[in-house]
Amino acid sequence: MAVAAAAPTARLSRQTWQFTQDVRIHGSAVVVGPKEGEGPLGSLFDKVYGDMYAGQKTWEEAERAMLEEAISLAISKAKLTSQEVDLILAGDLLNQNITATFSAQTMGVPLMGMYGACSTSMLTLANAAAMVNGGYANYAIAACSSHNATAERQFRYPTEYGGQKPPTAQWTVTGAGAGLVGLGGTGPRVTHATVGKVIDMGVHDPQDMGTAMAPAAVSTLITHFHDTDRQPKDYDLIVTGDLASVGYAIAKNLLEQEGYQLGNVYNDCGLMIFSSDQDVFAGGSGCACSAAVTYSYILDQLQKGFLKRVLVCATGALLSPISTLQGNAIPCIAHAVALEGGGA
Amino acid sequence: MAVAAAAPTARLSRQTWQFTQDVRIHGSAVVVGPKEGEGPLGSLFDKVYGDMYAGQKTWEEAERAMLEEAISLAISKAKLTSQEVDLILAGDLLNQNITATFSAQTMGVPLMGMYGACSTSMLTLANAAAMVNGGYANYAIAACSSHNATAERQFRYPTEYGGQKPPTAQWTVTGAGAGLVGLGGTGPRVTHATVGKVIDMGVHDPQDMGTAMAPAAVSTLITHFHDTDRQPKDYDLIVTGDLASVGYAIAKNLLEQEGYQLGNVYNDCGLMIFSSDQDVFAGGSGCACSAAVTYSYILDQLQKGFLKRVLVCATGALLSPISTLQGNAIPCIAHAVALEGGGA
Repeated sequence: MAVAAAAPTARLSRQTWQFTQDVRIHGSAVVVGPKEGEGPLGSLFDKVYGDMYAGQKTWEEAERAMLEEAISLAISKAKLTSQEVDLILAGDLLNQNITATFSAQTMGVPLMGMYGACSTSMLTLANAAAMVNGGYANYAIAACSSHNATAERQFRYPTEYGGQKPPTAQWTVTGAGAGLVGLGGTGPRVTHATVGKVIDMGVHDPQDMGTAMAPAAVSTLITHFHDTDRQPKDYDLIVTGDLASVGYAIAKNLLEQEGYQLGNVYNDCGLMIFSSDQDVFAGGSGCACSAAVTYSYILDQLQKGFLKRVLVCATGALLSPISTLQGNAIPCIAHAVALEGGGA
Repeated sequence: MAVAAAAPTARLSRQTWQFTQDVRIHGSAVVVGPKEGEGPLGSLFDKVYGDMYAGQKTWEEAERAMLEEAISLAISKAKLTSQEVDLILAGDLLNQNITATFSAQTMGVPLMGMYGACSTSMLTLANAAAMVNGGYANYAIAACSSHNATAERQFRYPTEYGGQKPPTAQWTVTGAGAGLVGLGGTGPRVTHATVGKVIDMGVHDPQDMGTAMAPAAVSTLITHFHDTDRQPKDYDLIVTGDLASVGYAIAKNLLEQEGYQLGNVYNDCGLMIFSSDQDVFAGGSGCACSAAVTYSYILDQLQKGFLKRVLVCATGALLSPISTLQGNAIPCIAHAVALEGGGA
């Protein structure tokens, strides 16, 4: 049987999609914990909790409450109800993606669970845009969360143990971010997405995620520039997700070796969300790091016209505690989404 | 800005997609452990290992080897190379989706990590079909795995502990399945997918997943029948993923209460993969349960014309050990994919 005439394709290359419809973010929200609220972007967040429990009995419930609030706020800011949302694409760092699961249950919206560690922010946004662009959903939510205390006890040691950390370690952001994607409107546009490959450069130290993740970010960024025929100067801002100070310097250096001078255009969400005096080692990390920066500051700047075009390259360290104990290096991935200023 | 003319939409309703292109499975493969090889479908699997280590040093490495082999075999049976595959959509039961991650790294194919517990088989197949139908990928792999010993030690007790199990417990299938999705050709067609909602009926017993998951399967099946304007009799075979004997009876009863008589058309992959004398409690479970049955027996029967139209409704219990310990019930989900016989 002959293949039917193809729909307007969004595929630019193996890894990069260009969305052919007018895909936009209709509403977004960020809910965070106290330390994030004290950071330089604190005033831009929709809600800041004064403690890590967010009125709940456990840290896991607190993370869930934050994700549910971010999703609800994004929906209401888009002047929609949860019944009008077709799909939630969500993930988090906790085992079995439990925060995303319970949040989708509370909202009563069909769920496609995704996992990309801290790259989940852009993995879900890329897919939400693909689902809307392809006509699979009228409105789709991309969302993710992390919580410093839930992540510490799952990936490292019980926090009560008080283990010391090296300066290469990062501080997992407590919070959640959500974006509601649909066609038309006047919000910031989602124009391209570049899906990453798993890159493992042999780094084994789970207290140095920035070094492990930098090559994955560089791989996805160079692929994006190549596939879109764009240069770094075509963006007003290029951010990586959570390389923090160690990984940021490595990524910048690797990009220069490949002929890409990012200069002042390049920043990292792990450096933007906390100030240097906040005692966060090399900087922020976690799904909520890039989600909080993107769904507050970056969308705000795009909407106000201070930024015209931004590339968010979220980075994820896909390790598990058991794979590390069994001697495996830390496999990493990065997914990038290109955003443009809104307006009619 | 006006919304551009929509592409041929695949959206039938909030939860159900009808693929508008000629989306087909170009190759599929199943690799399993010894117990699965001794079951009634044993002769249909591409490779059966004689022990649970599959030539590796750890069970986790064995699971990884099986997933990598299933993916490689599916690609080679489609007469393609991994370089021609645009995307792997994969997940597994291990923390941080580590089997899928390492397999995608070995293959060098971009990865979208997904998590739906045992529903991951159809979550990934539905999305691979959506990606191909929407023009995002020329060829996409859907794949998942599970391993009895890795799942036991992660979700329950170390196997050396020798804990007793009640008859409602299930036996996690050791194996992996993969399907390569593309346009055209002569393989079985992927025609519809129904994305599930998270359903939690208050079941707390992780040794009785069938009871927990049955309402999620019923919700997705009824939604599918409604959205497609189809009845159970429009299918030659309807299978749930891994409800096994306990959940199968509950699902059948719930469907009858809602006016759907499935009769002999209805079966469950957890009952099909093992025979009743194989000492598997209520039956099989795990991502690989529905994947192994779908990517071997069901596709084989469709290709030979013995079955014309099949609905696979994969079921997943999205619990985490910590959510259970914190007193939460087991949230469940089911995703369904409709398949039709191949031919030119």
